[in-house]
Amino acid sequence: MSGAGFSSALVANLTLVPHPTTLDIPLWLNLSATAVGALEGALIAARTRKYDIVGVFLIALCLGFGGGLIRDGLLGSLPPTALQSPWYLLTVIAVMIVSLPFAHRTHFMPGFLVFLDALVLGLFAVVGTDKALQFDVPLIAAFFIGTAASVGGGVAAEMLMQRTPTVLKPAPLYAVAGLAGAFTFWLLRDPLGTPTVVAVAGALVVTATLRMLAERYGLRVPMPTIPTE
Amino acid sequence: MSGAGFSSALVANLTLVPHPTTLDIPLWLNLSATAVGALEGALIAARTRKYDIVGVFLIALCLGFGGGLIRDGLLGSLPPTALQSPWYLLTVIAVMIVSLPFAHRTHFMPGFLVFLDALVLGLFAVVGTDKALQFDVPLIAAFFIGTAASVGGGVAAEMLMQRTPTVLKPAPLYAVAGLAGAFTFWLLRDPLGTPTVVAVAGALVVTATLRMLAERYGLRVPMPTIPTE
Amino acid sequence: MSGAGFSSALVANLTLVPHPTTLDIPLWLNLSATAVGALEGALIAARTRKYDIVGVFLIALCLGFGGGLIRDGLLGSLPPTALQSPWYLLTVIAVMIVSLPFAHRTHFMPGFLVFLDALVLGLFAVVGTDKALQFDVPLIAAFFIGTAASVGGGVAAEMLMQRTPTVLKPAPLYAVAGLAGAFTFWLLRDPLGTPTVVAVAGALVVTATLRMLAERYGLRVPMPTIPTE
Repeated sequence: MSGAGFSSALVANLTLVPHPTTLDIPLWLNLSATAVGALEGALIAARTRKYDIVGVFLIALCLGFGGGLIRDGLLGSLPPTALQSPWYLLTVIAVMIVSLPFAHRTHFMPGFLVFLDALVLGLFAVVGTDKALQFDVPLIAAFFIGTAASVGGGVAAEMLMQRTPTVLKPAPLYAVAGLAGAFTFWLLRDPLGTPTVVAVAGALVVTATLRMLAERYGLRVPMPTIPTE
Repeated sequence: MSGAGFSSALVANLTLVPHPTTLDIPLWLNLSATAVGALEGALIAARTRKYDIVGVFLIALCLGFGGGLIRDGLLGSLPPTALQSPWYLLTVIAVMIVSLPFAHRTHFMPGFLVFLDALVLGLFAVVGTDKALQFDVPLIAAFFIGTAASVGGGVAAEMLMQRTPTVLKPAPLYAVAGLAGAFTFWLLRDPLGTPTVVAVAGALVVTATLRMLAERYGLRVPMPTIPTE
Repeated sequence: MSGAGFSSALVANLTLVPHPTTLDIPLWLNLSATAVGALEGALIAARTRKYDIVGVFLIALCLGFGGGLIRDGLLGSLPPTALQSPWYLLTVIAVMIVSLPFAHRTHFMPGFLVFLDALVLGLFAVVGTDKALQFDVPLIAAFFIGTAASVGGGVAAEMLMQRTPTVLKPAPLYAVAGLAGAFTFWLLRDPLGTPTVVAVAGALVVTATLRMLAERYGLRVPMPTIPTE
């Protein structure tokens, strides 16, 4: 597609309802998002040493299910995918069993949690955007839903743990990385027509790279106000 | 309608399912509610000087979308109105762009935020009640949904900012003003049969007046318990 | 049913979609769950002496409606049951009127609140599981929804009151008691085929006993990590 063709397609699509396409994301990719999210949640919660196993499970659920629940709730696709098959709950339980014995060692690997978090952002951006594009919503709303799925599980977990949500704080790029992933997935698959696997890989690479570079080099979204003094 | 007729209509309607009527609230009124809510949210969040632009956007979304999302979620009308057209997200973005350069000046005009808040309460009470009345819910539930739409966006914003929600605190009338707006809108339009524009205007005047008088004169809902000392 | 037959039925059902059965829980049981939850919420909120009557009503709503709303939201059964009849809101209002004059005396009866809480856990586990079993979800998801309905109203109330949710903390058994109630209800009604009234009673007894014994003897779910020192 030529540059001009792509750019006019972008403008045309931005406020139009996209053509329904078939759901491209297979079960294993949805389960991978759940597993990686649950692993991140279990490790974060266990490291606090403040919650019991049920509490850790709840935080693991937030990060493993949260993005999908928010996506499905906003789309009205209920009961949510995560409750229509037994595999999602079983995945979270399996991740708990496998990961908890090692949770107390995660302070030796702070970079690992950042990497998991980057992967969760990218995976839920992809599965969120993919499903939103099947529904009768404008493209800008699909990006919004993809971004909400990307960061939403983390917001829910942070609210339960009574922390200020990372998306609010002037912290390294977070929601912006999720939005970039949602956009990249759509850009590669729909206007550019690459195979789904390429679009997924591209979105994951963009989101994770942006998130990890932001963490390393302290890239931040600016604050809105100019100090008056 | 005679007084006795009205009062028996009220009693009869209070537990009955209302007759479905056509949706009276036009797009521009829904977008106005979103714009005024987003403006209030953006100003409140920017004034804290604690959040970056993404965080401010999220609080603006809560107050611009929150009431509508809660209404549509409770009614099962999903995807929510705010995601079925691109205009809602574009409105919030436009409000952000226009208002943020002036956000640091809002401490010169505390009354302006109180006025915005009163307007948001009234607008979401109206659009919430109007849509609930189209659905198969009893009148008392429609008032509840109107009130929840009225105060819900503020509760969500306050939860994210880790503040005690205003609806809980013994603060000047808040949910009561929203409920009064929901009731006034129905009263004027349905039993009294005034044109929609009159019902909307009446509800806005009642809600905003009640809220601003409450703020000025410290009108409060009483506390429930008698101190034991 | 023989032991072997039951155990193979359990295994077969755990990942299969249950056969739809008729909705067994009558209105009065749903309203009882709402009334007991609202009573607990009103007493808890009033005792804090921090909220006005609207705030106390909101906490009463969380505990009276919350479990049902979460269940209906997860199942996509919207508008929720609690808004499809006027009785649920009227029940919460009636409970408020009757209970608030006595709220300041509840410090003489700490055991009463623990008992109410145990009853709420059991009642919402039963009504949550019962409805989830009517829907097209796997059995493990039905237990999850039953447990979420059981503890969800309390989580919502605690979040609004800015307390760390009890389900997270290493406190006496809470979600586990709800899960046990969900499981017992299904076990008695479906594989064992007892009448619904027996299944309801059995689930209430199991949940309440477990919760109250846990409170008395300090039974806790273990913490996940081994201290490194």
